[in-house]
Amino acid sequence: MPQSESLEPPAVRLAVEQALAEDIGPLGDLTAKLLPETYAEAQIASRSSGVLAGTACAQETFALVDPNIELTWHATDGDTLEAGQVIAQVSGSLASICTAERVALNFLGHLSGIATHSRAFVEAAGGVAVFDTRKTTPGLRSLEKAAVRAGGGHSHRASLSEFVMLKDNHLSVLDIDKAVGLARSQWPSKRVQVECDTIEQAQQALKSGADALLLDNMAPEQVAEVVEIATDLAAGENRCYIEASGGITLENIATYGTVGVDAVSSGALIGGARSLDIGLDVVQSSNLKM
Amino acid sequence: MPQSESLEPPAVRLAVEQALAEDIGPLGDLTAKLLPETYAEAQIASRSSGVLAGTACAQETFALVDPNIELTWHATDGDTLEAGQVIAQVSGSLASICTAERVALNFLGHLSGIATHSRAFVEAAGGVAVFDTRKTTPGLRSLEKAAVRAGGGHSHRASLSEFVMLKDNHLSVLDIDKAVGLARSQWPSKRVQVECDTIEQAQQALKSGADALLLDNMAPEQVAEVVEIATDLAAGENRCYIEASGGITLENIATYGTVGVDAVSSGALIGGARSLDIGLDVVQSSNLKM
Amino acid sequence: MPQSESLEPPAVRLAVEQALAEDIGPLGDLTAKLLPETYAEAQIASRSSGVLAGTACAQETFALVDPNIELTWHATDGDTLEAGQVIAQVSGSLASICTAERVALNFLGHLSGIATHSRAFVEAAGGVAVFDTRKTTPGLRSLEKAAVRAGGGHSHRASLSEFVMLKDNHLSVLDIDKAVGLARSQWPSKRVQVECDTIEQAQQALKSGADALLLDNMAPEQVAEVVEIATDLAAGENRCYIEASGGITLENIATYGTVGVDAVSSGALIGGARSLDIGLDVVQSSNLKM
Amino acid sequence: MPQSESLEPPAVRLAVEQALAEDIGPLGDLTAKLLPETYAEAQIASRSSGVLAGTACAQETFALVDPNIELTWHATDGDTLEAGQVIAQVSGSLASICTAERVALNFLGHLSGIATHSRAFVEAAGGVAVFDTRKTTPGLRSLEKAAVRAGGGHSHRASLSEFVMLKDNHLSVLDIDKAVGLARSQWPSKRVQVECDTIEQAQQALKSGADALLLDNMAPEQVAEVVEIATDLAAGENRCYIEASGGITLENIATYGTVGVDAVSSGALIGGARSLDIGLDVVQSSNLKM
Amino acid sequence: MPQSESLEPPAVRLAVEQALAEDIGPLGDLTAKLLPETYAEAQIASRSSGVLAGTACAQETFALVDPNIELTWHATDGDTLEAGQVIAQVSGSLASICTAERVALNFLGHLSGIATHSRAFVEAAGGVAVFDTRKTTPGLRSLEKAAVRAGGGHSHRASLSEFVMLKDNHLSVLDIDKAVGLARSQWPSKRVQVECDTIEQAQQALKSGADALLLDNMAPEQVAEVVEIATDLAAGENRCYIEASGGITLENIATYGTVGVDAVSSGALIGGARSLDIGLDVVQSSNLKM
Amino acid sequence: MPQSESLEPPAVRLAVEQALAEDIGPLGDLTAKLLPETYAEAQIASRSSGVLAGTACAQETFALVDPNIELTWHATDGDTLEAGQVIAQVSGSLASICTAERVALNFLGHLSGIATHSRAFVEAAGGVAVFDTRKTTPGLRSLEKAAVRAGGGHSHRASLSEFVMLKDNHLSVLDIDKAVGLARSQWPSKRVQVECDTIEQAQQALKSGADALLLDNMAPEQVAEVVEIATDLAAGENRCYIEASGGITLENIATYGTVGVDAVSSGALIGGARSLDIGLDVVQSSNLKM
Repeated sequence: MPQSESLEPPAVRLAVEQALAEDIGPLGDLTAKLLPETYAEAQIASRSSGVLAGTACAQETFALVDPNIELTWHATDGDTLEAGQVIAQVSGSLASICTAERVALNFLGHLSGIATHSRAFVEAAGGVAVFDTRKTTPGLRSLEKAAVRAGGGHSHRASLSEFVMLKDNHLSVLDIDKAVGLARSQWPSKRVQVECDTIEQAQQALKSGADALLLDNMAPEQVAEVVEIATDLAAGENRCYIEASGGITLENIATYGTVGVDAVSSGALIGGARSLDIGLDVVQSSNLKM
Repeated sequence: MPQSESLEPPAVRLAVEQALAEDIGPLGDLTAKLLPETYAEAQIASRSSGVLAGTACAQETFALVDPNIELTWHATDGDTLEAGQVIAQVSGSLASICTAERVALNFLGHLSGIATHSRAFVEAAGGVAVFDTRKTTPGLRSLEKAAVRAGGGHSHRASLSEFVMLKDNHLSVLDIDKAVGLARSQWPSKRVQVECDTIEQAQQALKSGADALLLDNMAPEQVAEVVEIATDLAAGENRCYIEASGGITLENIATYGTVGVDAVSSGALIGGARSLDIGLDVVQSSNLKM
Repeated sequence: MPQSESLEPPAVRLAVEQALAEDIGPLGDLTAKLLPETYAEAQIASRSSGVLAGTACAQETFALVDPNIELTWHATDGDTLEAGQVIAQVSGSLASICTAERVALNFLGHLSGIATHSRAFVEAAGGVAVFDTRKTTPGLRSLEKAAVRAGGGHSHRASLSEFVMLKDNHLSVLDIDKAVGLARSQWPSKRVQVECDTIEQAQQALKSGADALLLDNMAPEQVAEVVEIATDLAAGENRCYIEASGGITLENIATYGTVGVDAVSSGALIGGARSLDIGLDVVQSSNLKM
Repeated sequence: MPQSESLEPPAVRLAVEQALAEDIGPLGDLTAKLLPETYAEAQIASRSSGVLAGTACAQETFALVDPNIELTWHATDGDTLEAGQVIAQVSGSLASICTAERVALNFLGHLSGIATHSRAFVEAAGGVAVFDTRKTTPGLRSLEKAAVRAGGGHSHRASLSEFVMLKDNHLSVLDIDKAVGLARSQWPSKRVQVECDTIEQAQQALKSGADALLLDNMAPEQVAEVVEIATDLAAGENRCYIEASGGITLENIATYGTVGVDAVSSGALIGGARSLDIGLDVVQSSNLKM
Repeated sequence: MPQSESLEPPAVRLAVEQALAEDIGPLGDLTAKLLPETYAEAQIASRSSGVLAGTACAQETFALVDPNIELTWHATDGDTLEAGQVIAQVSGSLASICTAERVALNFLGHLSGIATHSRAFVEAAGGVAVFDTRKTTPGLRSLEKAAVRAGGGHSHRASLSEFVMLKDNHLSVLDIDKAVGLARSQWPSKRVQVECDTIEQAQQALKSGADALLLDNMAPEQVAEVVEIATDLAAGENRCYIEASGGITLENIATYGTVGVDAVSSGALIGGARSLDIGLDVVQSSNLKM
Repeated sequence: MPQSESLEPPAVRLAVEQALAEDIGPLGDLTAKLLPETYAEAQIASRSSGVLAGTACAQETFALVDPNIELTWHATDGDTLEAGQVIAQVSGSLASICTAERVALNFLGHLSGIATHSRAFVEAAGGVAVFDTRKTTPGLRSLEKAAVRAGGGHSHRASLSEFVMLKDNHLSVLDIDKAVGLARSQWPSKRVQVECDTIEQAQQALKSGADALLLDNMAPEQVAEVVEIATDLAAGENRCYIEASGGITLENIATYGTVGVDAVSSGALIGGARSLDIGLDVVQSSNLKM
């Protein structure tokens, strides 16, 4: 069984520290400080169906607020959730649980929303690999890309330094052939991908020896034509990697999946997701010294 | 004319620094480094209609990547955008523009999406004040609440330390009367608001002398009944501030607006928003030494 | 029993990390490194009478220097201390205790000094609520405001974003009535307080519908007159909240307390406090391997 | 003319950024945002007599809030201030001036309070050098020690890593002779100072070859006796550096100054200082577009 | 002409801020503060031959210490330096130049040392591409990899997240075929490289469809044999990318370069470099007010 | 037995957090995530002879990646290592060990390289104390100076604020006598050292009453002459502290050691060191659920 996505505590910790600082505020949790010392048991449950993500962040949130809180998880990142399903049980000081609640739920809701939306794209795609893009919420890219993977999607370039992507703005001053050559000499061993808006550009890119094409905003038929050209050019060998992007929706992704591309990518996996409704309810409390 | 929302450079700067670090990556922008020194002019334009927010972040993004880039804004936070409308013109080094592009657009898209969704709620509400909640993207609360205001919405509690809000989990161990009393003595001068799920709770809260009620997930008729009770109790004086929340949608917000509440609040202003599609295109470039 | 003030570990941790970094310095504790491995028991004791604050910071200081140090507290934030009273016992590595000593005592001394001075104001005030202001030591506001509360005082605005306070510099370009109206429309649900230097201004502010007045540097008789005017205007209802500030001293606070204001505030609670003398002494040490 | 104390922008910048973040808060300056665009001129003036410090922090505060604000300083760190004296003139956006005001004044007030108290000790000391200690406000040591120097005092050890100081807690397990020997071998070139509570300890320390003694809480006559012993022992050569500390007050410092010590040090320079009352007033404003 | 390596101000700024903080220390530059206000002109010159790197860091160092210092560069990253060659002229406040000197030189010396050592490897390699590894100085990876590129070398994986590299420790529990398959399904679009210690492992890796081999610590003849096997297997097509690593020295790199590999990599480019001796000398100063 | 160098967890933690962030990258350790849950035992061993340093950083690296990893150390900072010697045993999750490996080894290799090189200088010096300088890798000064001490060397000025050092650039505008006088009055109690390039300068510095000389780039005979002059001048008393620096090599350090100086210092201890080759190998793994 492969390792979970929760291997990187430092990144998670930093995000949780920032989120707690902004939510707790300068005077602390005014309301929680009114509470008597109480031991409570609570449940985190999904209020609609979806796909879970963000459990490492929620775990860290409770741990930073109060290391004595205990969490028992009944689901893990990537699991499908039904409406009403209990995700975790939380027990410990009621005041601490109240203070941590909103931050934990904000992580779970935001990231599970992305996992849920990604899963929808993956299922609609009918088998072709679905990728995110660099259209992410500022400051949260690592966590959001992990949520996409929890939903079954894949991670495209994490940053501008991962590989070369020649886009329209670059190609306004460099012709494709020269640009690919420059990239090869300056960044040997890095993948070189060319964004193409037309079949002509795709042909140039294929001839230039690029490792991959990103067909941007092309209709499925045009994409199919590029796949065919690339296949012919490969003459029985591995043809150039082809990715379709731009204008991909839940409705049309299946069509793109049938025309032979290696991958489909969409900023909508993250930018079009809505927060999943996840709540926390106290189920028992005892007004006693712990 | 009141000041814009863009008064706080330090907060904006921190968010932009984090976003640039994650997008540029450890080796820099591999592709931009291939470009010849080129002076370019580009346009930032909206690809669908909406409400603009995030201009301070976009401005800071370009400034941090290259202080020599010049921006001319044709719209400001809160302005309505039509599809295709030019928001700003950018001129300077093409390489710098390419490096800054995605981060600037991610801020504009994310925050304008929230402003747009907030404006929709405000317009549907028919005059009653619309508030956000603490359901925000972790780490981005200040920027997102400013985007809600750009959309015409208002800012609820910024953190747990701003005022006292007694919610169901708190009331599981404190009765309303005692809780309000404790809050008054421990936090005099801070507003005390009570979340009520039923008319009975609302009656208790009104009697306890709370400053404000938050009626959670109540039907409009129930809300109307609470407003009436509160008005009677006030006997011609200012009645208790009443806010409806929970289950508010674009469809039903108008109904809540007609029953006499002071405010309606919804986490959906932020959590239900989708990124607005805003792009950057180079319109001219000259392959010369600058 | 209400929760202590020590609920927010992240804020405390950050302050302690900064303080340790500046005190330990780049080469470490030169002197402690000379010590043989020794188990020691030490006492933290107050050398003069006062009110305790800052225990969470002291606890965190020892924990960050050496997690194996054990602390037993004999007093908690808000407790009255007599000269010579033992506050805590510390046991563990002598070198670690020596390294942590000064930072722990600096927190205890600074914050207990504020708690002590606040308690003096609260006791002199004779029952009226006493508040701090935004006159705090840069970077330490949260901890200092908690120390004021430990002394029995209350927390005024934590920041410029908590509520609207119209002061003389704002009123140099806005008349009170217009300013209060603007504040209501732009920041509904936020308290609007008006700083008044004269009885005339107070009358204007009362008419404008402000939630609260801050009477600045007015003599007790003038304050009494404003209270009377406000009470008349309220006609049996809750009158406007009135706070006296400016020029409040330990000598005159009682007088202000008798004229009917809701609150008295003073920057002197923090700015006029002096560090409380608290020391640490080793009471036993055994020159053995632990 | 020697350089001012204001040479280190990075440290100042960090402190100001933290202070602005805590004072502005998550929603920005609610009140300043109500202001029309107004050009204003304001004065920073001292409301009581004292010694100025903290101008670099105040300068940075205005610059970070709004780089277009202009400051003209009429006094510099270390200058004596009379009550009512204008320290600086500030001109620019009224909203920006209001937002920056409190943080700038908090730095000026806190640090000038320390400079003022230090100057009082220096003047009372009658010529002997006066030093601060490591009893500083957590996180502000560099700025506070600069304020002591602005007041004419001197900087003792900045951290535990600057030189070796053998105190009572260290000497509970090491005899002086052995400790000084260890320090010499482990930290050659670092000063080795021994804290002595009795004349016997001082004699041991002198024999051990320590570079300096710190006579802790000794009466002036005892201190004089140690100075004499050290002078005899030096036999016409430079005798060991002797510093008196512990229990030094404004009243008795002159006496300590006459017994021949090289230095007197006191934590009271910082820990016993009170904030100096410095204010900002708008003197002119024009309700026009800038 | 391609852009320089100096496009990423935020990363440079952070490194320089940390370096200045540690070098200036808590009391500032004691010695520079003794200087009269003096305008000085200074030269930065190399004291031995080498390759320049780190100019962006040096530039930022002077700018952060004093924005009024002016630098004129006579060489840029990647340029060959002769002993005695002037790299830059610096003019401005003598105190500021002295304060900034060491940090600026430490960056230039450390990074130019790496560029120089990399250039030696590149020149010895005789044409085959030379890569660094993840053996970098903790916290300085981005800057060091840029210095390798300034020396003509290339950047291998910037982090564990850039592509999949199956090393001996991973292959202790996964056979190559299964591991490559897992990598393909979990990380489609990421390069999959297999570290091989023997010819047998290389054969397995070639069959598994890996994108690249890293031949670790193999003798040149063994490497040649693997290249031949891979070429045969490719049957006229592009054969698998082959990189030799482990035990590469300036003496033997030429031999590895002749056996047909695509790349040679060595941690010695960074780990084996020594700081280049670069100094700063004041050439003129005028003891006048500036 | 004196305490180890590992007393300061906060500094170590910060360095390790930065190093892990840069090495793990935005998507996590792609390869480690492919591994089945496996318990492994591994050995950290030196591949060449040298002196160990950096164990606290390695310990913290494993702890931050996975607190369940267990380390058993067989050597400590300052120990001599033979080629092949096992330094530590590591046991726990194989995936975690793989993720932490490179950062832990980079700290051990870099710092042990410095300790090894420092030991070589110390042994060649034949008894005279050997010091580092401020020529350190930006951002790593504290750790590198601790590594020098692990190798038997000593720590010179940690920063510009530790003591006064008058160098050629300062002396271009101040004569030695005046400079030493200024330093005494402005920084009483701080050591004042003068860098001298000639015997004449050394004579001036001796007359000025400086605490220490730094003889820069002087031949051993010249150094011997200065020692003699200083000894004559002291007339049987402790003469001025004399340090030789500049151009010190492993070959000539012994000569400098014989001419009577108190100390020899060289930037080469750190700047001339090469990383020590230390590796980690899995020795056993069991493909089982832990």
